[in-house]
Amino acid sequence: MKYAAGIDVGGTSVKLGLVSIEGEISEIWEIPTRTEDGGKQILPDIAEAVKRKIEEKGLEKDLIGAGIGLPGPVDDDGVIRKAVNLHWERTFNVADELSELLGGMKVKAGNDANVAALGEYWQGAGKNYGDMVMVTLGTGIGGGIIHHGKIFAGTTGAGGEIGHICLNPNEKIHCNCGNAGCFEQYASATGIVRLTREELEASSDESELRKTEVTAKALWDAVKNGDKLAIRVAERFGYYLGWGLSVIAGVVNPEVFVLGGGVSKAGDVMLPYVRKYFDEHAFHACRDAQIVIATLGNSAGTLGAAKMVID
Amino acid sequence: MKYAAGIDVGGTSVKLGLVSIEGEISEIWEIPTRTEDGGKQILPDIAEAVKRKIEEKGLEKDLIGAGIGLPGPVDDDGVIRKAVNLHWERTFNVADELSELLGGMKVKAGNDANVAALGEYWQGAGKNYGDMVMVTLGTGIGGGIIHHGKIFAGTTGAGGEIGHICLNPNEKIHCNCGNAGCFEQYASATGIVRLTREELEASSDESELRKTEVTAKALWDAVKNGDKLAIRVAERFGYYLGWGLSVIAGVVNPEVFVLGGGVSKAGDVMLPYVRKYFDEHAFHACRDAQIVIATLGNSAGTLGAAKMVID
Repeated sequence: MKYAAGIDVGGTSVKLGLVSIEGEISEIWEIPTRTEDGGKQILPDIAEAVKRKIEEKGLEKDLIGAGIGLPGPVDDDGVIRKAVNLHWERTFNVADELSELLGGMKVKAGNDANVAALGEYWQGAGKNYGDMVMVTLGTGIGGGIIHHGKIFAGTTGAGGEIGHICLNPNEKIHCNCGNAGCFEQYASATGIVRLTREELEASSDESELRKTEVTAKALWDAVKNGDKLAIRVAERFGYYLGWGLSVIAGVVNPEVFVLGGGVSKAGDVMLPYVRKYFDEHAFHACRDAQIVIATLGNSAGTLGAAKMVID
Repeated sequence: MKYAAGIDVGGTSVKLGLVSIEGEISEIWEIPTRTEDGGKQILPDIAEAVKRKIEEKGLEKDLIGAGIGLPGPVDDDGVIRKAVNLHWERTFNVADELSELLGGMKVKAGNDANVAALGEYWQGAGKNYGDMVMVTLGTGIGGGIIHHGKIFAGTTGAGGEIGHICLNPNEKIHCNCGNAGCFEQYASATGIVRLTREELEASSDESELRKTEVTAKALWDAVKNGDKLAIRVAERFGYYLGWGLSVIAGVVNPEVFVLGGGVSKAGDVMLPYVRKYFDEHAFHACRDAQIVIATLGNSAGTLGAAKMVID
């Protein structure tokens, strides 16, 4: 069996996996991300870890390459411009550099959200579809576009970075990115907390949300229990997420949206609220897009990274 | 020299061109579009016209194929779902059907806005750029995405159909598409007329626009003359167009936007108004996109159609 290494680099640890070319993860392990000194040890540490595994498993002839997902914009050639979480400030070709450290092995690099999208496309919720947009609903909103089975990286590696689409130019509160009115200010976990607080302040209705810490999970639990105030928040969240997805559909006309990240754990409770507003605002020619929940969780990054070097 | 036929199908006439593989149009001619009987004569008429030209010019060995641009959504395989202007109601593969009528010649089909985008990318304003989005500002807004040198058609051929992105879910006036708040309700020629009328009604300021028919051209002429009310309209138009482009940039992160269509004739007078609001609303990683004016006019469709079959 042939394998590829799937590497998922985070700010505190690097997750490495051995993935068969048929899409099975046979081993997964972690090393710390050493961000000191401008993160200059990160790639050598990764190369060392891969080489040891090759030796340990006798994979000299069976490892066809390594794919690496990174928390920053990566273009088609593997050039990263900046990765704040890794303390990388320079613009350089990650794929070339890691390839050199691995003795010329085939290496591809991608943005972590794009790589996770590729994983879901290959082995997860996007498996039986054509063009796909993955939307990761966490603290913020990340995203990745898969077109003709490949990552759509965009000119500066910001393709599918949909969290900062401006939905509301009149917003007064600023987003972390410096702009205001960004998609992720409304339709992320942070957005849910904000919309819930606004609703709690605006009304004096009873709600189980008054008796608990306000989180995305608490909101969807309350919706499940039929809590009326929670349902109003769900409508507003669905409005923003559905509208935002309709805008994306109007640009790239995907066959499916795959929703991942913490908020997506709400699953079937959430989908009707999103679908309703998507249908209301999507152009008719793009309205057939499916909206489904991601299935791979954290494995998406490992699988997608490996898939980059598997034809 | 090798040639390709570039065919641009409109509701009243079909424009045909002979295009060298280096991008020179050596001949261009028209035939009527016969829309009667569900438009069933349209493709046979085109095939006949191409065959006659081959014979007339002795191009039996030198015509490498034919590309055809159509007023309707066309997917990657050449399947069109509907083309109201051509009275086509059925879903069928235009490329295959025309190829058969041409004795098995290589034929590719695309949506006309996408095909024009490919023309501008190949020989026009997008020539020295990577990924490109063309935005055609006419009565409505059309668009086309060029990714890695090829048309991004989308799942149902509606990729780049950006005119119906919803920018304003609170809009009360409906768009022709049935939705409300579409991009083209604000940033097209029709949008300019509407914004101008609103501004004329909302204020009693003197303006040369009170003495003339309100058109996009009249607006930009007045802006050139320093007309204050016209400048306020230009700001509102720039706000919608710049904001809309920033949203598109946040999805596909192009290197350049090429603005075409009637409104783009305003050229350099218009660009600063668009740029200002694009810069204000675009995510920083996508903000370097250039915004330029199309250069090919009506030839874009002929060139782009031919380019589809030229590698």
